[in-house]
Amino acid sequence: MHKELTLDRIRAVLARLEETIIFALIERSQFSLNRVVYLPGALGVALGDRSLINFLLHGTEVLHSQLRRYTSSDEHPFFSDLPEPILERLDFPDVLVTDGTLNFNARIREVYEQHVVTQICAEGDDGQYGSSAVNDVVCLQALSKRIHYGEFVAESKFQAYTDRYAPLIAAGDREGLVSLLTDTEVEINVVQRVREKTAQYAGLIQAADDSTLTPETVVKIYKDWVIPLNKEVQVEYLLRRPVV
Amino acid sequence: MHKELTLDRIRAVLARLEETIIFALIERSQFSLNRVVYLPGALGVALGDRSLINFLLHGTEVLHSQLRRYTSSDEHPFFSDLPEPILERLDFPDVLVTDGTLNFNARIREVYEQHVVTQICAEGDDGQYGSSAVNDVVCLQALSKRIHYGEFVAESKFQAYTDRYAPLIAAGDREGLVSLLTDTEVEINVVQRVREKTAQYAGLIQAADDSTLTPETVVKIYKDWVIPLNKEVQVEYLLRRPVV
Repeated sequence: MHKELTLDRIRAVLARLEETIIFALIERSQFSLNRVVYLPGALGVALGDRSLINFLLHGTEVLHSQLRRYTSSDEHPFFSDLPEPILERLDFPDVLVTDGTLNFNARIREVYEQHVVTQICAEGDDGQYGSSAVNDVVCLQALSKRIHYGEFVAESKFQAYTDRYAPLIAAGDREGLVSLLTDTEVEINVVQRVREKTAQYAGLIQAADDSTLTPETVVKIYKDWVIPLNKEVQVEYLLRRPVV
Repeated sequence: MHKELTLDRIRAVLARLEETIIFALIERSQFSLNRVVYLPGALGVALGDRSLINFLLHGTEVLHSQLRRYTSSDEHPFFSDLPEPILERLDFPDVLVTDGTLNFNARIREVYEQHVVTQICAEGDDGQYGSSAVNDVVCLQALSKRIHYGEFVAESKFQAYTDRYAPLIAAGDREGLVSLLTDTEVEINVVQRVREKTAQYAGLIQAADDSTLTPETVVKIYKDWVIPLNKEVQVEYLLRRPVV
């Protein structure tokens, strides 16, 4: 098994992404919800019928794409009309067996705008649209990476237990796959760790802002969205994976 | 005195910026130094004689400028050839008395590339140039904001103790100003708080990476650069301030 696919390596990456996600949520939660950021056509002529978050997320991906961000198999863009990298491609080992079409970002963005940012921010409008959107982009990228990492989790499990996964994949047995790849004890541990980390990180901050981020909010985001979507990614990945 | 200039408000903003800076340094320190990111012309034809960090920092400022980032008096751009905002200008109260020309960013970038990133990252090259540069931009923006916040500190002190500051400004007495605005006890407290926060934040992270960030490294960055440069900003601000 490739080193990228060992369970120790995957768990370490997922645990480290918790900091990236929690830090990003803490930063965003300094500002009010600012609903207008997410409304198409709400912020002036120059944006046309786009929302501000659309404009900034696209502009950021145009930049990052040129830095070859999306040539890495653990990164997935939100947009498809992106320029080619200006850096030479890195020779990444192909550890995933995929046609590269799996992309949950439309869903992740919907969930973020409707269920995440609404929970981490105080309701209202403080005029800080740019700061809000800049931090949204960091949150979206971190959540996308964490959720799509399910591809690596799934490939690792498939290689370790091919005899159990292959028949379910061949039969297109979605429920069987969900049941086989669910490890309730691991999920409980993740949630508990996220609760403790957020308590520590958010607890040290002296309130210079209206931050409403509590450990239970981040726990809810993990329980309702991060873990379930990660699991969906695993199932979709496996259903597309050739079994021979 | 305007609410933005009260000492409580300023201290709260500066304390909150510690999280932004420490989180950003922790994120950057996951990747190797990758010196090639900072070398002009080192990364291929498309960049011409620019460095990768130059390309990304400029591209990011072009985006953020359109979101009116640099119309806010606590933000200073690294580049001057930036487009106009596409959002309507906010009516910020003018709490600073300045011609808007004070900008330490050339110096901050030099310090960052030569003394900060070299201390927070493991020596070497892991190929993660894009990720390194993306995190560099966040670090540079956070450090720039913190250091330039000296303008607010200075204006607050000037308004509180005009009778003491005005004669020194009129006489162009740089040393007198440094001595008057230095509060050693406050500096010791800042350093101690930064040490404790970094120990807490970095201490919880399970090492999935080569992070070399220690509390003493962040303390050194504050002692050698953040605090002295913030003080220089205060002096330069005061020397340009009309005393009548």
